[in-house]
Amino acid sequence: MFDASRAGAALRAIRERRPLIHAITNTVVQNFTANGLLALGASPVMADAPEEAGEVAGKADALLINLGTLSDRTLRAMEEALRAANAAGVPAVLDPVGVGATAFRTEAVERLLSAGRFAVIRGNVAEVANLIGRPLPIKGVDAEAVPTAVAVAVARAAAERFETVVAATGPEDFVTDGRRTLIVANGDPLMARVTGSGCLLGAVVAAFAAVEQEAFRAAADALVAFGVAGEIARERLAALGPVRSGRYGIALLDALDGLDEGALAARARVREAEEMAAEGGGSA
Amino acid sequence: MFDASRAGAALRAIRERRPLIHAITNTVVQNFTANGLLALGASPVMADAPEEAGEVAGKADALLINLGTLSDRTLRAMEEALRAANAAGVPAVLDPVGVGATAFRTEAVERLLSAGRFAVIRGNVAEVANLIGRPLPIKGVDAEAVPTAVAVAVARAAAERFETVVAATGPEDFVTDGRRTLIVANGDPLMARVTGSGCLLGAVVAAFAAVEQEAFRAAADALVAFGVAGEIARERLAALGPVRSGRYGIALLDALDGLDEGALAARARVREAEEMAAEGGGSA
Amino acid sequence: MFDASRAGAALRAIRERRPLIHAITNTVVQNFTANGLLALGASPVMADAPEEAGEVAGKADALLINLGTLSDRTLRAMEEALRAANAAGVPAVLDPVGVGATAFRTEAVERLLSAGRFAVIRGNVAEVANLIGRPLPIKGVDAEAVPTAVAVAVARAAAERFETVVAATGPEDFVTDGRRTLIVANGDPLMARVTGSGCLLGAVVAAFAAVEQEAFRAAADALVAFGVAGEIARERLAALGPVRSGRYGIALLDALDGLDEGALAARARVREAEEMAAEGGGSA
Repeated sequence: MFDASRAGAALRAIRERRPLIHAITNTVVQNFTANGLLALGASPVMADAPEEAGEVAGKADALLINLGTLSDRTLRAMEEALRAANAAGVPAVLDPVGVGATAFRTEAVERLLSAGRFAVIRGNVAEVANLIGRPLPIKGVDAEAVPTAVAVAVARAAAERFETVVAATGPEDFVTDGRRTLIVANGDPLMARVTGSGCLLGAVVAAFAAVEQEAFRAAADALVAFGVAGEIARERLAALGPVRSGRYGIALLDALDGLDEGALAARARVREAEEMAAEGGGSA
Repeated sequence: MFDASRAGAALRAIRERRPLIHAITNTVVQNFTANGLLALGASPVMADAPEEAGEVAGKADALLINLGTLSDRTLRAMEEALRAANAAGVPAVLDPVGVGATAFRTEAVERLLSAGRFAVIRGNVAEVANLIGRPLPIKGVDAEAVPTAVAVAVARAAAERFETVVAATGPEDFVTDGRRTLIVANGDPLMARVTGSGCLLGAVVAAFAAVEQEAFRAAADALVAFGVAGEIARERLAALGPVRSGRYGIALLDALDGLDEGALAARARVREAEEMAAEGGGSA
Repeated sequence: MFDASRAGAALRAIRERRPLIHAITNTVVQNFTANGLLALGASPVMADAPEEAGEVAGKADALLINLGTLSDRTLRAMEEALRAANAAGVPAVLDPVGVGATAFRTEAVERLLSAGRFAVIRGNVAEVANLIGRPLPIKGVDAEAVPTAVAVAVARAAAERFETVVAATGPEDFVTDGRRTLIVANGDPLMARVTGSGCLLGAVVAAFAAVEQEAFRAAADALVAFGVAGEIARERLAALGPVRSGRYGIALLDALDGLDEGALAARARVREAEEMAAEGGGSA
């Protein structure tokens, strides 16, 4: 189900077409997200006013809605943008940051899920679990370690419930449409120490969704591309000295900029969830 | 019309006087703008509430208004700040990000241009063209490649219409007051891959306008200083390995910090637009 | 009154417990603050909507309120968060950025000081002076050089007035509860050239307050830890070439990430204010 040459072709398409990604995302990570999209080859636009969000989203190649620093104002912008994206056939990605942590946030996600359709929902496992009313321990915006089998079951249930693709991240990442499930073992633990790396992944999913027909494939390709960039970032730094979180954030952008098809083909670590079951639980 | 020793003296004045630059700018680039102003030697203040924007602008040495992530709230702050700046004789710079892309944005620019006077308008060529109702292709916030002669004509028309100085950026940069036009060939293509580099240029223009009497000169000096910093940033990185966009953004701040008068004198590439016509179209 | 082994134990506690720091801070520095907290070992959450700020603060391990880009909306969130933090016994830190610069800002601080209690107030000397109605020269958000004896007197008066601990920063930093006063000589001048370094210090104070019972000790330990990180950042860069402000900001995050108890013990430069008087004025 994962084909590295297809992922490479999608990466090439992003660089050739420079898709316009409308990212309504939180103020903590706007800069990092925009730089990450530019490094990947896409064109970010981050208008977040209700007065124009629909007009911008309708002309974009993909829409990202990230709930990080949600406000009443940006929630209205998100609804406008989602409706316009749906009407124009623009794929939309939801990153339900912190859903379940507060009533405001949970209600906002419900409003968005009622207002329109998302091609992909990207969240950590705890957030995905909250989406379907099965809360796991959550602390801040980080998911606690969750057994792989539980994580996969939660992601599948969410995909079925919302008739979408779910890309759930944790020690291992998963993508599922409820029937097919791929497990992506790429990435690096230090990514969790750079604020907005998960949010940037949501934007990377949107960029792949802008150039690929099928959301399931776009999400899988994005997980691999982002995870591989995270691995390359560590290796480059490790050759120079201790790997610290400040320089790692910059190196992650550099790795997205330098990412090529060869690296995707050589480094992708993807398996189907069924294989995992046969292996007895799939600790990576 | 361009005098490198004058530009050097202005840079020195910024470092000695540390002018207070009130930047009402978008949330994507606030951090990068503030760090860029500090690196240059200026003092940023970024208050964007309508309740205090006028009070802050009236005490500042220059005002930057950037429309990136415009909202109803910040638009009111911009109007208050512009009126106070005009009343106090504080030079104001407008960066009409995305004008023409949405009705909200276009109306906001019209409101601002009616509310007061700007010493300099800085935008990419597509934005400047939209200001005068001659739309060019625009994608996201990046201007597509436009012939130099068209770009110059657009910038001159905008300067005449709004009785201001226009600093238009693209593959080459231009500054014009409608009569005089300078073309600045400094800079580096990678600057367009760092989010907020154009927005930071608007802030650099404001910093030079804070210490120079004449807006035309301030804009030209700022274009040269910023472009030279972009060139130095590339050279420093190229000596160490591949030049990637993440580290380039940091190197650009470093180059502003280390910029000196000697570099401006040695590297400035400025010519008058008339010479360009004689050369037959001015590809750089 | 300062014990390096205690400070080291607090640092270790932050890394083991990963306290959740609710930071309602300005949009200029949210990213840098979040990355700084992650580098130190804490977990940031930056929800700033009035609809949820109380719910978030009540579950946090410490609360930071920073007035940088204050708005009517975030002011309401700050009040909600402060009340919830006080009710839940969560220590709160106030960073009154720019108090005294505008009426809006001054009134906002008065509202917050009436609405609840702060364990620590962190500001530069000019801001602390404005808190008690004794304005000093202030330019932008930077305090001008102020004699050490004046700075200490101002900080003590503020601590007494508001029955809190005051951590005042400048060429030297001070922490006082009105009776005891420690002077911390750690740090580096370049920290003032990185936007948000003072704001990040406020967050670091909150992180130490999350794991230490006594606010006075937490503030002193935070000042030492942050100052030592600033020194290490310079040394690492100086070994590689010129020390510039862009790379220094990243190096500061790296130094927080790599900070250990040994560095705190070896580098802490803390003395009691009384000693300073005997030395005749305490220029560092």
